Amino acid sequence: MATFTLSDLAGIDRYKLLTGLIVPRPIGWIGTVDAEGVHNLAPYSFFNCVSATPPTVVVGTGHRSGSPKDTLSNLRETGVFTVSIVTEGVVEAMNATSAEVPPDVDEFAEAGLTAVVGTTVDAPYVGEAKAALECEVNRIVPLGDPPKSWLVIGDVRIIHVQDDILDGTRIDPQRLEAIGRFAGSGYCTTVEGLFSLERPT
Amino acid sequence: MATFTLSDLAGIDRYKLLTGLIVPRPIGWIGTVDAEGVHNLAPYSFFNCVSATPPTVVVGTGHRSGSPKDTLSNLRETGVFTVSIVTEGVVEAMNATSAEVPPDVDEFAEAGLTAVVGTTVDAPYVGEAKAALECEVNRIVPLGDPPKSWLVIGDVRIIHVQDDILDGTRIDPQRLEAIGRFAGSGYCTTVEGLFSLERPT
Repeated sequence: MATFTLSDLAGIDRYKLLTGLIVPRPIGWIGTVDAEGVHNLAPYSFFNCVSATPPTVVVGTGHRSGSPKDTLSNLRETGVFTVSIVTEGVVEAMNATSAEVPPDVDEFAEAGLTAVVGTTVDAPYVGEAKAALECEVNRIVPLGDPPKSWLVIGDVRIIHVQDDILDGTRIDPQRLEAIGRFAGSGYCTTVEGLFSLERPT
Repeated sequence: MATFTLSDLAGIDRYKLLTGLIVPRPIGWIGTVDAEGVHNLAPYSFFNCVSATPPTVVVGTGHRSGSPKDTLSNLRETGVFTVSIVTEGVVEAMNATSAEVPPDVDEFAEAGLTAVVGTTVDAPYVGEAKAALECEVNRIVPLGDPPKSWLVIGDVRIIHVQDDILDGTRIDPQRLEAIGRFAGSGYCTTVEGLFSLERPT
């Protein structure tokens, strides 16, 4: 066993260890809008559901070259966002939206995606996605002193789901074809590896 | 497209939709100890890394039959926990530790696992795991009013990693053999589905 004391490591090494070990991570493809109405779309894997009652998701985000990422700026300005679900059919488009571009670039247009404005929140989601969540920011928790990252806690208001992956409120994982995130340029498809384990009683 | 307004749904339906769509989730196998020294171990998939600087993980947890889960009680009492990484070789043992048992039951013993006490935190991790994190509670954020769930934010202090999955600080995902969580009794292995996508510049 190797043992790493994180306070002794360079940031890049902490990042490699944490993103390499805490896998597979779900991908939240976060849609926001800025005060001028410019749409923004970017994938985050420091993302998950953390509660169903109340329905809550979290997104961890940081700064880029010293200034807040567009997503974080927009969340602070507008208080709303969407989460589009990343599946096999949209994975190349998702990757295209991970490029670092200036704030005035609309990643939906750049990646050839349809921006659908939410029914309860004024933020766009990906029309080509099999499912999307409309969310409101509950609070933003600074991490570190002084803060180096921020944890966005969001309340989920609405979920849109394509009918053919749905049986009541059960999602068919074979038809969803979700993608998971690993470190570096790593991802995984999920359909081949699906299995079941009955919980002990 | 079907559209669900979450405030109109029963809790079980919110749970099915959120756990079915936000996949694959990494599994944090959380080790804690209570004030009497009884070890506790339970898997959580409302779990992820949310920041590398500062190194931060989150765990969402709730109540069970009206009283706090053992993990949450212990976190409040001791302020420390471990996260063991769940991989193919320990998945049956992980499932065994998901049974609902009284607080005085040591899940390490029940599942035939070795409890290794942390070097910086007084909480046990799984000796059979390929990697484990030692963490301190940074804060516990209540979710809902009145609170129905709690979001535990943890600072990662130490990471232990088996040498044969490590190249410097890079983790080999082929050798890690991580398991992801889906809804219900669903899981996925990850090795078969691994692929790479270079980030656009």
